[in-house]
Amino acid sequence: MHLRLEHLLVSCTLSALFHCVATKQVCPPPRVSPENPNVIILMVDDLGWGDLQSYGNPAQEETPIERMVREGSRFTNAYSADSMCSPSRAGFITGRLPIRLGVTGGARVFVPQDIGGLPKDETTMAEMFEERGYATGMIGKWHLGINEETSTDGVHLPSRRGFQYVGVNLPFTNVWECDTTKTMFPDGPNGTKCFLYDGDELVQQPMIFDDMTQNLVDDFKFFIHQRKAEPTRPFFFYFSFPHVHSAQFANNQFLGSSMRGLYGDNINEMAWAVGEVLDTLRASGMAENTLVILMSDHGPHAELCLNGGSTAGLKGGKSNSYEGGFRIPFIAWQPGTVPAGRVSHEVISSMDIYKTFLDKLPCPEAEEGKEAVPHDGTNIWEELKGIRPKNAGSLISKRPIFYYCNAHLMAIRLGRYKIHYKTSPIFRNGTYEGTKQMCPGGKPLDDWYVSQKCPEEHLTKHDPPLVYDVVFDPYESYPLVDDELLAKIRAQASRKILEHRMSITPVKQQLGHFNASIMPCCNPPSCICNKLKKRPYAQLVEASELVKKRRNTRSLEKEVFEELYPDF
Amino acid sequence: MHLRLEHLLVSCTLSALFHCVATKQVCPPPRVSPENPNVIILMVDDLGWGDLQSYGNPAQEETPIERMVREGSRFTNAYSADSMCSPSRAGFITGRLPIRLGVTGGARVFVPQDIGGLPKDETTMAEMFEERGYATGMIGKWHLGINEETSTDGVHLPSRRGFQYVGVNLPFTNVWECDTTKTMFPDGPNGTKCFLYDGDELVQQPMIFDDMTQNLVDDFKFFIHQRKAEPTRPFFFYFSFPHVHSAQFANNQFLGSSMRGLYGDNINEMAWAVGEVLDTLRASGMAENTLVILMSDHGPHAELCLNGGSTAGLKGGKSNSYEGGFRIPFIAWQPGTVPAGRVSHEVISSMDIYKTFLDKLPCPEAEEGKEAVPHDGTNIWEELKGIRPKNAGSLISKRPIFYYCNAHLMAIRLGRYKIHYKTSPIFRNGTYEGTKQMCPGGKPLDDWYVSQKCPEEHLTKHDPPLVYDVVFDPYESYPLVDDELLAKIRAQASRKILEHRMSITPVKQQLGHFNASIMPCCNPPSCICNKLKKRPYAQLVEASELVKKRRNTRSLEKEVFEELYPDF
Repeated sequence: MHLRLEHLLVSCTLSALFHCVATKQVCPPPRVSPENPNVIILMVDDLGWGDLQSYGNPAQEETPIERMVREGSRFTNAYSADSMCSPSRAGFITGRLPIRLGVTGGARVFVPQDIGGLPKDETTMAEMFEERGYATGMIGKWHLGINEETSTDGVHLPSRRGFQYVGVNLPFTNVWECDTTKTMFPDGPNGTKCFLYDGDELVQQPMIFDDMTQNLVDDFKFFIHQRKAEPTRPFFFYFSFPHVHSAQFANNQFLGSSMRGLYGDNINEMAWAVGEVLDTLRASGMAENTLVILMSDHGPHAELCLNGGSTAGLKGGKSNSYEGGFRIPFIAWQPGTVPAGRVSHEVISSMDIYKTFLDKLPCPEAEEGKEAVPHDGTNIWEELKGIRPKNAGSLISKRPIFYYCNAHLMAIRLGRYKIHYKTSPIFRNGTYEGTKQMCPGGKPLDDWYVSQKCPEEHLTKHDPPLVYDVVFDPYESYPLVDDELLAKIRAQASRKILEHRMSITPVKQQLGHFNASIMPCCNPPSCICNKLKKRPYAQLVEASELVKKRRNTRSLEKEVFEELYPDF
Repeated sequence: MHLRLEHLLVSCTLSALFHCVATKQVCPPPRVSPENPNVIILMVDDLGWGDLQSYGNPAQEETPIERMVREGSRFTNAYSADSMCSPSRAGFITGRLPIRLGVTGGARVFVPQDIGGLPKDETTMAEMFEERGYATGMIGKWHLGINEETSTDGVHLPSRRGFQYVGVNLPFTNVWECDTTKTMFPDGPNGTKCFLYDGDELVQQPMIFDDMTQNLVDDFKFFIHQRKAEPTRPFFFYFSFPHVHSAQFANNQFLGSSMRGLYGDNINEMAWAVGEVLDTLRASGMAENTLVILMSDHGPHAELCLNGGSTAGLKGGKSNSYEGGFRIPFIAWQPGTVPAGRVSHEVISSMDIYKTFLDKLPCPEAEEGKEAVPHDGTNIWEELKGIRPKNAGSLISKRPIFYYCNAHLMAIRLGRYKIHYKTSPIFRNGTYEGTKQMCPGGKPLDDWYVSQKCPEEHLTKHDPPLVYDVVFDPYESYPLVDDELLAKIRAQASRKILEHRMSITPVKQQLGHFNASIMPCCNPPSCICNKLKKRPYAQLVEASELVKKRRNTRSLEKEVFEELYPDF
């Protein structure tokens, strides 16, 4: 046991990011088991419904995600909470629609000068799990606020929202400003909009992509390594990829790996990390007790053409309320619990995960003194386990899917029908000179920011609303014609929307309140630095005597675990 | 052995379709083995690239085809020989482009009054296999001609083209005329265009769909049952589905089985038959020695909207030279030889199958006296076995993909590039009143027959040609911009096309020469009859004593086999 304590000590010393603080536990944690598993969310950024080989892509390579699909279940009717990053992530992490949280306004996403963030009176999934005694951790993209009053107060950072462990992370990602090819920004990367944190500390400006994926994986392994010390206590981990947001990137190992080009390279790099996650869980004996969910935060940035992903023919994309904007790849994996190779057509939402575990882990003490709030998800535990509900399609009957753009309710899905009240333009005409490479034959001329913000004057209103059968016609090509059925669908939609609107409490808009002085800057005015330390896991492996004996990384890691915890 | 002979005798007596004739063998057959397998082609009609769950469809149910995909290999860049039925099937069955065969002209497909057919100086795949000692058989859709001079001469029927066994078959399928819902034809089915043959005999006018799939499966089982008598002799079987051509149909067992509606029901019914094929092969111990390939004859009838299939976003569809018209699902299965769960992005063609077995089965005697003709396929045996060629993408370098519409060369694919010289219109505007149900919001007004025939005046000519990178951009959204690379691609395409044109010998057009008096009619002038006999396999099973003992069909079949061939 000597070795173990020494290593834990080392970790706390070496890693500014690992907070050795007491948790805010209210209820005792369940003993980890297949029915009360660890939960890992692998959130991919801007990954399109049609980007993965297992979702039909005709050019993407076989990756470890395809293995995950074979060993787990794949969903074809999964939806994000919104079609843009910040609101979609806010919805996912609270189980509530962004309209309830005030994550609306501005440019629809948090930018570094935004003083707002995810409101403190909301409970994040990390806080919910923490109250129930889970260990929690996160790495990667955050995008739910940074600072409020100074450039270093970090009041909106993940460490303040229930994440006990926070590794390398990107509070904001508009990776365009990181583009080293100078295609988009002739002066090269812009550090004020391209930076990396380690826990709460700003460590790189501009961010360096070369080792980023490896660093993320190492931090995940470090967290798992730490969790070995409390083998019966479950954990929640949020691995939020900066991949495959544009501009695209790939390190030397993956550059040129895809026949699809840089976009495919980026998917391959991300998918390698997914494989590392699953392998680590298997090597540490945790696989059967860990639910892993991979999903996208919303549709692909289709307007960027070859630099954005594929909807596989679904209309629209990121920022848009057609299916291309909201329908996401969603894969669940837990050997022995989630059926292998299953494909489910049930309608599920990224917000269902919160509600599922809130239901599964009753803890009335945690809710004391909190205002009861409506949740927009539904419990999908049985569906994840592959237990067919008596009536197929029953999950959608428990809650509709709402499609918002900013504060505009654009559409609603009820059963197999989708009712559009407003639509925003889809650009596929004109040419924008700056991105000829990506869209050789045509590119949005009027700029995609219009469709991102949905200003009233750019919306087309449909009265009567446009109705599609998105089971027959997921491509939203053929609106249904007026008949009795249609009248019923519209009436039912009106009732559901009235009910929904009644449940919404007006809140302050969090986006679009700026203060330039709070933008993160490591050494003003240059905002250029690189203080990123070697990752604790890399040090741990390096420090081990075994390194000298063995060179095979995978077996080495297993042996590191075994030497550290011989009695586990 | 008494039982065996008796049953064979019974079969020959009962079944007008089973021709007890000597084969035209020239070379001795190889002993059946994994390297010299039986070959079964499951050809599906009008099935879209995006219609199967395993090709990404978000609404199609899990079917036995998904099992076939898991146990076999799936291809994402497979092409048909043409985008319409008759030319595509002519190309597949001869390994030669329809332009070489004269299967051009008219309405692009054979209609019942056409006097033409697949020319007799061409060698079909069945004839090629027959010459090499294989047993051959076919059931289902033919569409390569019927009669020439009288309504009963049947000179173009499959029994005259190398198929020793022919079960229930449809020489022509425009299933519209079989539509019992009276949506398309208010007077109900039109027997002169909707009929079923049993071998060479016309047996149903109009065709009855209820038992058709079961009858096809029974005939397949009967063929397999017969093949047990010569266990070492390989066979070639062409199972050509009338599914999922429009109008759609499904029997009681599958009606309502798909949330996608009748189109999905039809897929489920077809896929059930696929499962029966694979199960029969397993039960008879033939699986490891049998290569099964499932493919579509071309893209889906997208212009029929909800009554046609899905391209998963590929542009165009049936009759069109965009990817939606030519890219097909293609699945190969041979346990132990074709790798399980593999996905290949290699460019393959339906015409490669002919060339593959022509290469694998040298028989110079069979070629004696025949004029040497160019083939348009390439040997894909190694690719089917999952042996990666040294340079990925090398199959396309062996032969380009040519996209014809009638006699017009529309486009060519070279490597990752597709060069369009002409394009035909894609209809998605206007409303054609007759099909409101299928295309609620819009339907080709000018009629899709225009795009099917490609008359000169309807084509858009591209000079310089339109070039897409169909790996980056399979949806053909962004034509490449003019630069040095593009000039090289165009020059290379011109060279390939010149070479190709030099290899073409002018032949007589087979389509569009009509004689109304040769249309099949069982009892003029009514052309209504139903003389279809109970299928021999059904009788065989019924006759067996085992029926009385057991009710489990699957184990029963196995026992029937065992009782008939105890020493096999």
